[in-house]
Amino acid sequence: MFTAAIAGASGYAGGEILRLLLAHPECQIGALCASANAGSLLGDHQPHLPSLADRRLEPTTPQVLAGHDVVFLALPHGASAALAAQLPQDVAVVDCGADFRLADPQAWARFYDTPHAGTWPYGMPELVRADGTRARDDLRGATRIAVPGCYPTAVSLALAPGLAAGVIDPTDVVVVAASGTSGAGRSLKPHLLGAEVMGAMSPYGVGGVHRHTPEIVQNLSAAAGAGATVSFTPTLAPMPRGILATCTARLAPGVAAESVRQAWEETYAAEPFVHLLPQGRWPSTGAVLGSNCVALQLAVDESAGRVVVTAAVDNLTKGTAGAAVHCANLALGLPEPTGLPTAGVAP
Amino acid sequence: MFTAAIAGASGYAGGEILRLLLAHPECQIGALCASANAGSLLGDHQPHLPSLADRRLEPTTPQVLAGHDVVFLALPHGASAALAAQLPQDVAVVDCGADFRLADPQAWARFYDTPHAGTWPYGMPELVRADGTRARDDLRGATRIAVPGCYPTAVSLALAPGLAAGVIDPTDVVVVAASGTSGAGRSLKPHLLGAEVMGAMSPYGVGGVHRHTPEIVQNLSAAAGAGATVSFTPTLAPMPRGILATCTARLAPGVAAESVRQAWEETYAAEPFVHLLPQGRWPSTGAVLGSNCVALQLAVDESAGRVVVTAAVDNLTKGTAGAAVHCANLALGLPEPTGLPTAGVAP
Amino acid sequence: MFTAAIAGASGYAGGEILRLLLAHPECQIGALCASANAGSLLGDHQPHLPSLADRRLEPTTPQVLAGHDVVFLALPHGASAALAAQLPQDVAVVDCGADFRLADPQAWARFYDTPHAGTWPYGMPELVRADGTRARDDLRGATRIAVPGCYPTAVSLALAPGLAAGVIDPTDVVVVAASGTSGAGRSLKPHLLGAEVMGAMSPYGVGGVHRHTPEIVQNLSAAAGAGATVSFTPTLAPMPRGILATCTARLAPGVAAESVRQAWEETYAAEPFVHLLPQGRWPSTGAVLGSNCVALQLAVDESAGRVVVTAAVDNLTKGTAGAAVHCANLALGLPEPTGLPTAGVAP
Amino acid sequence: MFTAAIAGASGYAGGEILRLLLAHPECQIGALCASANAGSLLGDHQPHLPSLADRRLEPTTPQVLAGHDVVFLALPHGASAALAAQLPQDVAVVDCGADFRLADPQAWARFYDTPHAGTWPYGMPELVRADGTRARDDLRGATRIAVPGCYPTAVSLALAPGLAAGVIDPTDVVVVAASGTSGAGRSLKPHLLGAEVMGAMSPYGVGGVHRHTPEIVQNLSAAAGAGATVSFTPTLAPMPRGILATCTARLAPGVAAESVRQAWEETYAAEPFVHLLPQGRWPSTGAVLGSNCVALQLAVDESAGRVVVTAAVDNLTKGTAGAAVHCANLALGLPEPTGLPTAGVAP
Repeated sequence: MFTAAIAGASGYAGGEILRLLLAHPECQIGALCASANAGSLLGDHQPHLPSLADRRLEPTTPQVLAGHDVVFLALPHGASAALAAQLPQDVAVVDCGADFRLADPQAWARFYDTPHAGTWPYGMPELVRADGTRARDDLRGATRIAVPGCYPTAVSLALAPGLAAGVIDPTDVVVVAASGTSGAGRSLKPHLLGAEVMGAMSPYGVGGVHRHTPEIVQNLSAAAGAGATVSFTPTLAPMPRGILATCTARLAPGVAAESVRQAWEETYAAEPFVHLLPQGRWPSTGAVLGSNCVALQLAVDESAGRVVVTAAVDNLTKGTAGAAVHCANLALGLPEPTGLPTAGVAP
Repeated sequence: MFTAAIAGASGYAGGEILRLLLAHPECQIGALCASANAGSLLGDHQPHLPSLADRRLEPTTPQVLAGHDVVFLALPHGASAALAAQLPQDVAVVDCGADFRLADPQAWARFYDTPHAGTWPYGMPELVRADGTRARDDLRGATRIAVPGCYPTAVSLALAPGLAAGVIDPTDVVVVAASGTSGAGRSLKPHLLGAEVMGAMSPYGVGGVHRHTPEIVQNLSAAAGAGATVSFTPTLAPMPRGILATCTARLAPGVAAESVRQAWEETYAAEPFVHLLPQGRWPSTGAVLGSNCVALQLAVDESAGRVVVTAAVDNLTKGTAGAAVHCANLALGLPEPTGLPTAGVAP
Repeated sequence: MFTAAIAGASGYAGGEILRLLLAHPECQIGALCASANAGSLLGDHQPHLPSLADRRLEPTTPQVLAGHDVVFLALPHGASAALAAQLPQDVAVVDCGADFRLADPQAWARFYDTPHAGTWPYGMPELVRADGTRARDDLRGATRIAVPGCYPTAVSLALAPGLAAGVIDPTDVVVVAASGTSGAGRSLKPHLLGAEVMGAMSPYGVGGVHRHTPEIVQNLSAAAGAGATVSFTPTLAPMPRGILATCTARLAPGVAAESVRQAWEETYAAEPFVHLLPQGRWPSTGAVLGSNCVALQLAVDESAGRVVVTAAVDNLTKGTAGAAVHCANLALGLPEPTGLPTAGVAP
Repeated sequence: MFTAAIAGASGYAGGEILRLLLAHPECQIGALCASANAGSLLGDHQPHLPSLADRRLEPTTPQVLAGHDVVFLALPHGASAALAAQLPQDVAVVDCGADFRLADPQAWARFYDTPHAGTWPYGMPELVRADGTRARDDLRGATRIAVPGCYPTAVSLALAPGLAAGVIDPTDVVVVAASGTSGAGRSLKPHLLGAEVMGAMSPYGVGGVHRHTPEIVQNLSAAAGAGATVSFTPTLAPMPRGILATCTARLAPGVAAESVRQAWEETYAAEPFVHLLPQGRWPSTGAVLGSNCVALQLAVDESAGRVVVTAAVDNLTKGTAGAAVHCANLALGLPEPTGLPTAGVAP
């Protein structure tokens, strides 16, 4: 058994972490912290968690958080660094924010306003790199882990096998991804109102300006062993959760179309949370709702000279909270799949 | 450990039973049966259950189903009786169809075309009756159980405490309920197409002709200890899952408004799957998605002389598959909450 | 040709009025006014109106509004009275707010915080009253008109014919209505966020406390010629627009079920915007999206002793802006249907 | 005044043509034809068109269709050719099917099973070609017109200006588009059921196999004056209507990023149904619901070396029925915008 505290327990990511921890056989839920909502009941913010409804939210202080085996940080970007610095080194800190994801301070500086806080082991266990290692190699027993962004999760797991195997070209990758609106968190903005979201799809952050862009480039470059060039366009879709990423890259010169799939098959054969679908089936965000799985499928378009890989994840589960719990399992030496659902809630 | 077979494994209810059984610590999933889909893979029909994707669907025969501790029947109405008759008496049969729900053959005859198959113990454990007993009293160790309909679950749990306590009047109950479209199963009908459902609410079965009407009347009469009269209008709502039932009954003569709530508080104080919300919060189907809980709240409208009780359930979980697993737990002598989620998937 | 100014042009109701006026053959759109948004372009707020995108919003002052033939007020409740008092009497003022809807100052006082501003002719032309007159009789040539609320529109048009004809009983009316989330306006509240709304139905204002309750009671009482008692429960549905109202009343003593429908047929035979559907079809909010029609259907539930009338409207069109334009047509002496669509946008 | 007959009046495209024609000041609606639904009332299939609800559907024969000024064909692909051959040459035939869209019989043969029926003037008036002409030049007075596909409309109008101006490169175009489910018509397929569609996004026709691919290639090649290479991935989005196309192409060598936008500004300055949004605003399908406009916006991603153009249309209006009416206006010599809405129904 381990104890866990959550900072940001009244938000969407915090709520999803709690939902997963309630089903985790090794976890005892400890302090639930919030900022503006400290002092209120969890039930006022997370009506879907009745067994915790009467727990009172505490202020987000190092004193409250320390004394747990794991601390999950589900805070706005930029808020994790100062807090993490005050937590004991033997507490496993799993940060769902962006603060410690990027290795390159210049990439950070181009996309964020705050100083670069540093770089933590990157919490995408299945990510394969050009040298054949996987990101999980850095995560076992780690006490500081940076949980990936939701878009980078879908895109990186979609493309890394082909890049690492050299069957697709990293120099002109094009990604268009659709996300459910929970991806924006509980932000009170007019364009996130139900009346404006339902029935509507719209792009945002077009032209390479979305903050997940450098994280995607970093991951694809690590997979390719060479600098990747990525055009990334996110879009907002009329659904609460889910990301569908359509990722295309040019077929590498001399690669036969029929041999392409093998790279993905070999990379993910033993991964419990990556499902390369049988040919003829395509991923749907509906099938991974609440699940920690990414569903993948690919096709080779010989006329266009491109491989198209599609990936579906639940942005809050595999894209955030499930990855966080997965990382905590690695940090604590538990079997990776402990407590994590592979079944989605469908239809 | 117990073994379970599912008849109707390729439908919505069958899929939800499987999702729950995958998380059930005492269950080993056995035969998966289908009718028209026998011979195909489960993954062709239930893309959200990757761990069972390669399981092949078997024909629905007594031979295939027998030899399990529990058989779940998730079949069209009218198909259960013949099959159940051929299963050994020591196999626990949990029927999600309507066949064995009604005690009154005449009520059956008015709403169904087929002969009345009989009456099994009614699988709504929390239902309180006028004599103070609960339906669970008939379920412990039972080997034949009729799982309630989804609408009757929401409506009966909403109103029974007040009827049993005599604080509301059973003679002019009015219920309007909205259901997600999975309630109609995977039926290929134009009005269930996504393009026609999204953005649209519409009534159906108006005027007391919906088949769940006699089941609601039966339950409310049992709670009241007297014949209930119910106007029930179901409506189709643009969401995949969920029922929101708005149930009103006249305040019984001489009952003080401020004493009404007590009947619900006392009835449900110890129920793990019934949550009477604190005052000021209202149920939402979104908060019970995938959960085995019903969320309740009530108000007294003194101007109208009516009590209004609102109930939210997931029609596939608490309204069908969760109740079925709950019943199986009772049949097998397991603790009632075993393997059943109280947390919803939200937002 | 007439000229029209709109106060509240950057809100949902204002946008819908503009959409309708753009298709009105007799209207020239004049000043567009806003409060906090004054100074910005209409295109920043109403992206669906490209032909007006470059129009700049003016401050909401009597000076700007005066000098038009019609002024539409689409303001928060309580803001219309002071403004209207400063507009010339020969300008037709059509108020979409609640300020002038209620005749009874005490009913106003129970539901609103502000002083009662007065009572204007009630802008529901088709409303039949016990004395056989219709509300339109007060609207021809009127220069001050109070546009009804969206829920009262659906409920009153659903029940008034039966009440006026004496075939249903006004003393125990029960109404449950589902509304799309645009009914709440562009309010930045967490429960209106897309992520929380989609997939979710929830009640609000339960127990007779919704502000549309006294307006419904007023209308039904006028139709019945006697005090109506109404239990009204509104619910929030996962769709942008639309109201589906399920309205039930007891069949009056001695009335034969088969004669009930006649009251509705006779009342609405000549109404261009009320469609009593042929038997066997049921209203859907999807079929009236963007239309100025209300679709009605009814059934008699003899077992329950109740008549159930269901009504579908678009809350922003027939429920607000279409009614406003309809009223303007009456005020100006134009044919009532001028410029108003009866076709919905479906599927 | 002109008379119009519709073949396929009970389908989605036919219903939308009727909705538009009802608001067309020059049109008198004549025969409404159907296949399997002949003999039934239009109101059984198009509940949103109350003014035509009692019109009876006639069989789809040349005899019934002839004698009108315009015949709109809204039929399954492959059904138009035989019918059109039997209609008099002086009847304007506007075909919403694919039969006559493609100029290259080999491209047709690769994507369709039926023989190539021929090539009609292509009904996308605003499409600019490398030689500076527009497609409308072939449409004035034409008596046979092929209405474009919905995806090709969004994609071609998005990219043609840059291709014609030489500022983007036609050789590696990547398009990902999301469509509402009405794009599939009223087909009774499980994956189009509301319960499976809502909350879910999924790709289909991946790898260049969607039938709209050769039409897109044809249009982009005509714009570029050179063969275009296109990777096209369609996805299904949880909304009834709308297409959001994200279209990217490499910036042509030597072109300055700040000069790119000019090509679109100049091409569309005078087009009533193409709205290049002001910088800072992005298209949304919600804003063009029911409108005949396409909304466009673009960005240059210098890091990726690509221009990203996003386009939003209503697949049934601008993407089908609105284009058909636009073409009819051109065929009949009416002003192009006659009877066509530019305002969307939002929110």
